[in-house]
Amino acid sequence: MGTGVRRRMGVEERRQQLIGVALDLFSRRSPDDVSIDEIAAAAGISRPLVYHYFPGKLSLYEAALKRASKDLASRFVEPAEGPLGARLLRVMRRYFDFVDDHGPGFAALMRGGPAVGSSATNVLIDSVRQAAYEQILSHLEVAEAPARLELVVRSWISLAESTALLWLDGRRIPRADLEVQLVQDFAALAAVGAAHDEETAAVLRGALRRDSASGPFTDLVTRLIALAS
Amino acid sequence: MGTGVRRRMGVEERRQQLIGVALDLFSRRSPDDVSIDEIAAAAGISRPLVYHYFPGKLSLYEAALKRASKDLASRFVEPAEGPLGARLLRVMRRYFDFVDDHGPGFAALMRGGPAVGSSATNVLIDSVRQAAYEQILSHLEVAEAPARLELVVRSWISLAESTALLWLDGRRIPRADLEVQLVQDFAALAAVGAAHDEETAAVLRGALRRDSASGPFTDLVTRLIALAS
Repeated sequence: MGTGVRRRMGVEERRQQLIGVALDLFSRRSPDDVSIDEIAAAAGISRPLVYHYFPGKLSLYEAALKRASKDLASRFVEPAEGPLGARLLRVMRRYFDFVDDHGPGFAALMRGGPAVGSSATNVLIDSVRQAAYEQILSHLEVAEAPARLELVVRSWISLAESTALLWLDGRRIPRADLEVQLVQDFAALAAVGAAHDEETAAVLRGALRRDSASGPFTDLVTRLIALAS
Repeated sequence: MGTGVRRRMGVEERRQQLIGVALDLFSRRSPDDVSIDEIAAAAGISRPLVYHYFPGKLSLYEAALKRASKDLASRFVEPAEGPLGARLLRVMRRYFDFVDDHGPGFAALMRGGPAVGSSATNVLIDSVRQAAYEQILSHLEVAEAPARLELVVRSWISLAESTALLWLDGRRIPRADLEVQLVQDFAALAAVGAAHDEETAAVLRGALRRDSASGPFTDLVTRLIALAS
């Protein structure tokens, strides 16, 4: 029985090692260009042994994606302390850290990786978006978002994704600038949403009241006035 | 020779008819759920005859997507007359007309349709985004966009896509509201970009000078002030 327990542990450890090796390779090059042979070589085992643990590249890819998704979702968790803009900025920094670490794999996934369109992949991508969405609502102290606020928050999440993808394509703008810009983009899009919907406005008024005077809304409005004058 | 010419015309006409029938079906239901049998029945021809014109569903799907892409790209073309916000609003109306007409197919395509990840599909999607991008630059009267402005415009295009997708999912907000919101989102995101980048600011100052006093920037700033006060 002792041996049985050790063997089961060994299987799980080997699986986890393979997932780590694969995730590293899938992060540094487009997953389509990574072969099972390479993963086997990087893990120091034979190709048939990889197939012993994973039936094929797709299942290894999905396992790697699952680990990456959990990692990314965990980066959205931020204590409810201090100005909202500063909280979101810290999240944006961790988000760009992730994108920076997994650039080619992230780009391939969002553009159409080996498993794109598969329901497993879509479920994972959606779970990350959902985690981001719920975190933002919790910081706005909203249990149930009005339809317009939901749209603002979800569409901003997709803006953050596309901004990260555009940044990866050439890195022509310092990522620190984009982290700040995305925080202000959120404030701007939320303000536009609030201008059209009273329920959204009430949520944001509450957030502004609780926020410090130097929060992102105040800053943004000042910049907009300077631009338009 | 006369018969040969007529036969070639007939082939092309038949192809165009099949593309039209397929596009209509792919627009009304998720393309994955549309069979060649249905397309044949809707076109009033036999299943083998469909295969005579198109080797398979994927090639017919790609042909339908090509036609839809041309249609959508043509809707971005807007004369350079009147306030910028009004021009963009007219484009947004035509964009939502398109999304409204092709809802399930549009959603499936952007979420992962039968050909997602294929290079042909990506090329078509990118060609539509590029057409939108070039139209916006022409209205801003910019030949070569600074990196930050390029990012603002391209990320707003993805925001418009995700807003349309979110709208399709339940249609809980009137589309006319979202058309106006997206115009103001553009103004807001451009203003944030301009606040961070002098070249982008110079382009927008020029656009504001040429725009009428009731343009989207002015309107947005007024709403932001009201919200923050």
